[in-house]
Amino acid sequence: MATFNIPPVDKDIAAALQHKIDNKTKPLGSLGQLEKIALQVGAIQQTLTPALHQPAIVVFAGDHGIAKEGVSPFPQEVTYQMVFNFLQGGAGINVFTRQNDMQIRVVDAGVNFDFNQHPGLIHAKVGMGTKSYLQEPAMTMIQCQEAIEKGAAIVREIHQEGCNVIGFGEMGISNTSSAAIIMSLLCNIPLEQCIGRGTGLDDEGLARKKAILSEAIARHKGIEKTPLHVLSTFGGFEIAMMCGAMLQAAAAGMIILVDGFISTAALLVASKINEHILEYCIFTHQSNEQGHQLMLSHLKAVPLLSLGMRLGEGTGAAVAYPLIRSAVTFLNEMASFESAGVSNKA
Amino acid sequence: MATFNIPPVDKDIAAALQHKIDNKTKPLGSLGQLEKIALQVGAIQQTLTPALHQPAIVVFAGDHGIAKEGVSPFPQEVTYQMVFNFLQGGAGINVFTRQNDMQIRVVDAGVNFDFNQHPGLIHAKVGMGTKSYLQEPAMTMIQCQEAIEKGAAIVREIHQEGCNVIGFGEMGISNTSSAAIIMSLLCNIPLEQCIGRGTGLDDEGLARKKAILSEAIARHKGIEKTPLHVLSTFGGFEIAMMCGAMLQAAAAGMIILVDGFISTAALLVASKINEHILEYCIFTHQSNEQGHQLMLSHLKAVPLLSLGMRLGEGTGAAVAYPLIRSAVTFLNEMASFESAGVSNKA
Repeated sequence: MATFNIPPVDKDIAAALQHKIDNKTKPLGSLGQLEKIALQVGAIQQTLTPALHQPAIVVFAGDHGIAKEGVSPFPQEVTYQMVFNFLQGGAGINVFTRQNDMQIRVVDAGVNFDFNQHPGLIHAKVGMGTKSYLQEPAMTMIQCQEAIEKGAAIVREIHQEGCNVIGFGEMGISNTSSAAIIMSLLCNIPLEQCIGRGTGLDDEGLARKKAILSEAIARHKGIEKTPLHVLSTFGGFEIAMMCGAMLQAAAAGMIILVDGFISTAALLVASKINEHILEYCIFTHQSNEQGHQLMLSHLKAVPLLSLGMRLGEGTGAAVAYPLIRSAVTFLNEMASFESAGVSNKA
Repeated sequence: MATFNIPPVDKDIAAALQHKIDNKTKPLGSLGQLEKIALQVGAIQQTLTPALHQPAIVVFAGDHGIAKEGVSPFPQEVTYQMVFNFLQGGAGINVFTRQNDMQIRVVDAGVNFDFNQHPGLIHAKVGMGTKSYLQEPAMTMIQCQEAIEKGAAIVREIHQEGCNVIGFGEMGISNTSSAAIIMSLLCNIPLEQCIGRGTGLDDEGLARKKAILSEAIARHKGIEKTPLHVLSTFGGFEIAMMCGAMLQAAAAGMIILVDGFISTAALLVASKINEHILEYCIFTHQSNEQGHQLMLSHLKAVPLLSLGMRLGEGTGAAVAYPLIRSAVTFLNEMASFESAGVSNKA
């Protein structure tokens, strides 16, 4: 399969960046996490004056065979219906990207619906939804690699157009189930702690989801626990494509805006393929979906927002984007003690 | 003194707002705190289609007699120097208001410096800094009322120009000391828990600050614990003026963006004068200054951001403002299940 050459971020510039941050007219450290983001972005871009260009959110949509087993309160049709909603500009992610001057791309990674050509839709369908992993692997290894490579190709094109900061969202009824299993197997965390209510299961539905996913894991208990085997057995086409997209974004030196539970699961797979990807990631929010906090802890990630959101689509990344702009903008525009003629601490 | 007629927010519209929110194309409740903000703003404005107009940050600057007792690592001159920095556009609050298309007003509430006329500066000086409350009350009751009324007048004018969402910031070397004492006396919380490192005290400086503030409280132990007596004895001109500004903002039905430790202390005083003010407040962030979390708990407030910021100037409010826009924008622009043809939960 495609290999991704992700260079570790060269930290030699960090001292100069920190010096610049510390000489801004403010008490030392008083911009908190914004200072860390400024340092990270400056280091990724290897400059004291970083810039964010053509910010984008890419939403990957895919269907899941497991949906027919009753792990979600919404019917599978919602996936394709929501794709139309994205294309019409009415979904949450449309609203937030418009607000924050971000471009949005919608990708059919494998929705169980035949879409006509549409200028807003990227056709990258790997299949008409995955198989139910309660019965068989969700996808073949060939399909998994195809999804990864298509995700990478999409990002390669967006990067060539001038984008250097990119977030990834998803739509796929039942995809919290895939994310929970991936998390459990790749982080070695008991499944129970990885499963949440998704789009809104009640207690009975949650118990059913736990039983089904436990059974699914048992059915495939012999598989190798490599990232690709776990991904192909339990993943979704949108998750696999997002994984490839993230790997390519890091390889291109872009800043990656990590969204919620499912996006972080895709990153988890990517980080087991190449751990250097994490140096390019900004964790935009902590989802209200149970398991996300644990997943973030596993990645030693500190999210910017914790607003109880759990919508998916990349909405957390889009809503948080102005904070990343704030970090870059203060680094570039704030006066220094010297330039402003302000006395520094005694 | 001026009285402020703050009507309780009429909640009759809440059910219709919640119905609108619940019919957006998203899982129920999945926008978390943004949904609460949308509901609050709609109720304040008594409409299902709220709008934010001419957002503003007003920064009040004032000096404190207590500064000469050594409670801050920065010299008092930094207050006026930072006012020049605000006027030149180089401070944090300038950067963040520019980024987020907010207007900024800078007010000399009582800086120990004679400013020339400047188009960007509102001259509302009550005195050349307060007295040291280690020796005598910080200000007279007349001065305190003058500050409150001047703050109200400034907001009245901004409101008349069309602004309906306003945040308040401050600059005043040593003003975390005033805020800590106000908090301790009005919330009945031991002083020890209210005092923090401010702009960056070391352990020795912190111990000294605690000793000085304890002594100051002891010196005035006979005062009535009314909001105005506490404010005039221990406050700053910028804090008193912000208190009046906040009361007027609520009286005018504006949305108030509450910033960090000192701004919240001003609100604390205002809320003891008229508790209905709290219905107009959005708490934008939790400061890293010790005490702020406790103060927010006392007010039953849940902040939007918790980024470890402690810069003051209204920077938390300005950085968080896009989130309030996100809340209003999703309420106005997101499609409903019906309009988008998306199946709702079974």
